[in-house]
Amino acid sequence: MTKRQLPPLRYAGQRRTIIMITLSQRTQKMSPSYIREILNATQQPDMISFAGGLPDESLFPKQRLQDAAAKMLADTRCFQYGETQGDPKLREWIKNHQIPDTLEVIITTGSQQALDLIARAYLNPGDTVLVETPCYLGALQVFELAEASIITLPQTISGPDIEQLEQILQQHTPKLFYSVPDFHNPSGRCWSLETRQAVAHLLNTYSTLFIEDAPYRALRYEGDHIAQVSDLTDAPTIRLGSFSKVATPGMRIGYAAGAATCIQPLILLKQAADLHSTLPIQRMMYHLLADGLLEEHLPRLVHHYREKSLVMTHMLRKTLGDRISLSDPVGGMFLWGELHGISAHALAKASLENGVAIVPGDVFYPSGHEGPEALRLNFTHASISMIEEGIKRLTHAANML
Amino acid sequence: MTKRQLPPLRYAGQRRTIIMITLSQRTQKMSPSYIREILNATQQPDMISFAGGLPDESLFPKQRLQDAAAKMLADTRCFQYGETQGDPKLREWIKNHQIPDTLEVIITTGSQQALDLIARAYLNPGDTVLVETPCYLGALQVFELAEASIITLPQTISGPDIEQLEQILQQHTPKLFYSVPDFHNPSGRCWSLETRQAVAHLLNTYSTLFIEDAPYRALRYEGDHIAQVSDLTDAPTIRLGSFSKVATPGMRIGYAAGAATCIQPLILLKQAADLHSTLPIQRMMYHLLADGLLEEHLPRLVHHYREKSLVMTHMLRKTLGDRISLSDPVGGMFLWGELHGISAHALAKASLENGVAIVPGDVFYPSGHEGPEALRLNFTHASISMIEEGIKRLTHAANML
Repeated sequence: MTKRQLPPLRYAGQRRTIIMITLSQRTQKMSPSYIREILNATQQPDMISFAGGLPDESLFPKQRLQDAAAKMLADTRCFQYGETQGDPKLREWIKNHQIPDTLEVIITTGSQQALDLIARAYLNPGDTVLVETPCYLGALQVFELAEASIITLPQTISGPDIEQLEQILQQHTPKLFYSVPDFHNPSGRCWSLETRQAVAHLLNTYSTLFIEDAPYRALRYEGDHIAQVSDLTDAPTIRLGSFSKVATPGMRIGYAAGAATCIQPLILLKQAADLHSTLPIQRMMYHLLADGLLEEHLPRLVHHYREKSLVMTHMLRKTLGDRISLSDPVGGMFLWGELHGISAHALAKASLENGVAIVPGDVFYPSGHEGPEALRLNFTHASISMIEEGIKRLTHAANML
Repeated sequence: MTKRQLPPLRYAGQRRTIIMITLSQRTQKMSPSYIREILNATQQPDMISFAGGLPDESLFPKQRLQDAAAKMLADTRCFQYGETQGDPKLREWIKNHQIPDTLEVIITTGSQQALDLIARAYLNPGDTVLVETPCYLGALQVFELAEASIITLPQTISGPDIEQLEQILQQHTPKLFYSVPDFHNPSGRCWSLETRQAVAHLLNTYSTLFIEDAPYRALRYEGDHIAQVSDLTDAPTIRLGSFSKVATPGMRIGYAAGAATCIQPLILLKQAADLHSTLPIQRMMYHLLADGLLEEHLPRLVHHYREKSLVMTHMLRKTLGDRISLSDPVGGMFLWGELHGISAHALAKASLENGVAIVPGDVFYPSGHEGPEALRLNFTHASISMIEEGIKRLTHAANML
């Protein structure tokens, strides 16, 4: 992907003199997301998309949404201005159900906003941030916007290599270490308990703020839940939670939780950023959760997504054989396939021409870093019959290369 | 107001070693909003508050909200991830009803977020921003967070002094000129047409991006609407719109509109900031507007708010006499009273002790700038009988000084 530099601003209307307003340095460096651009291509009819990270809208809990909306509307005070930190009812539910009660929580417009607030609160231009590669694209965007210096650590199958991690912490003392230990986007990987314990131990001795992003944590298809790193360490941590994958993403409700001293600066920044996130939707989310969304709706989601992941994995192995290496998906929304003897970009391009959209792996690396020949495939959005048809088209494209 | 410096971060939990994570420079400079702190004090029972900028929730259009929610829920696709720029239906409505159709629009989480995105897109630390004083506090927060150098221009009764403005544009060529020409917060003032034309003319010859914030524009109680400055100039402008004052503020729907080249960078930044604003609420707002909110609900609001403004003005003049100078309120949500022989801070403190909250005027000046002895009084939130009681308490406090 070549980064598109934004030109200086030229006013498009009628004018007597050409007036140019230059963008800030950080904005001049930004580029549109490759994935958003692919998503535009997927608007074409008959296109099958494995490119986005979208949940299956046919599984949205329609009746629950109706019920939650009715309860929300019964108290229209939630349409008034509210607290920057978020709806007290929703915060209380999160404190009672998802985080240790010693922690403070701020509700954000998706966990993406939490990431952005963290970067603004803690990073000066040039500060060092450590990420595993491949890395969630939205995090790379935020850290590049903050003009951070990004250091990468290649993922192993069970999380970061502890020796390498210690070396980096020693040599660079990064300001932040950002990671997605549960069902990583894009790799789908899940840190083992041993890795989590070792990382937790390391964090205790280095001055690095650990950001544990866990949007997919509830979408586990095999095995038992593993403790969060932030529960295993005494070091300063901020954990990010999201309801986009277990409720609906359009509602844009996420949160950041950590010690009060870690969260307080985010509240101050959010006040300037947007005063607060929309309250009626926070209240709707509260009612969804209080009425048993996770107990009753989540198992249904897990059942369907697990089935889709198995179908996609099975078909890919059958049709591409040893031209692709897939790790077994134990959770989340993505398969990560390492290609053997195939160019990921050539395959993505040929697939698009065959009516199926996929994302080449190097998109998930910071600019200037070379990525492997790999693919990210989303298995949650398409129906099973579309998955079958899409993998046929993908295989056809691969066979033509 | 003394600014409270945030201490370096200390992790509050149990730990073996004390680990400190320092905040970014911009965050170290931030201070909590004085008004938010006053709002906390107003949570006490029997406190009458003229301090916030809250609409009257007894006037929220409950049936319309119910109807809009029902229409929104009938198409649950709006619960899926959506476009960063905003819901296409709402954008189309805005383009058809509120802005020239050559302009581009981005939906934001209140117009506060639009301001924040503009500052991030256009300002490097040290860049110069021109504001009229007094100034909307949320704008000052955003510009201080962007580490801008803030230049002030004192308001006259009909807008900025044109000679002074030209001098500043010539000498400093500020990157942005931020203003609220319609029923200013906190001063309530409204620029005359002549002033607007003169400012529009000046903008044509200086490389300054004009930000026209118009959240109160629809709340006009006297006279005819006056053209927006951004409609009178060929210079680059971004106008901000908000539905917080005409629908409900908790929904947090605002927008920025301008030439496509001005808006495109905001879209890119918003993608990193929060992907997009909550979609179901954008859709609800679309239905509210499409179903005639402005035609039918707005006149009712204007009627009630006008009555409240008259009651408050009348009572203040009657009880404080020549100790206060009030401009006649022709729109918006605030009265601005210049005090004669009374300290605004002493009066605010004594009033709070008497059970009524008001905001002293110097809060609306950048730190380091001295403000006048003045008060901002909100007349939209309290009922008429509470306004009467509140002004009695305020007068009692003034008489005790």
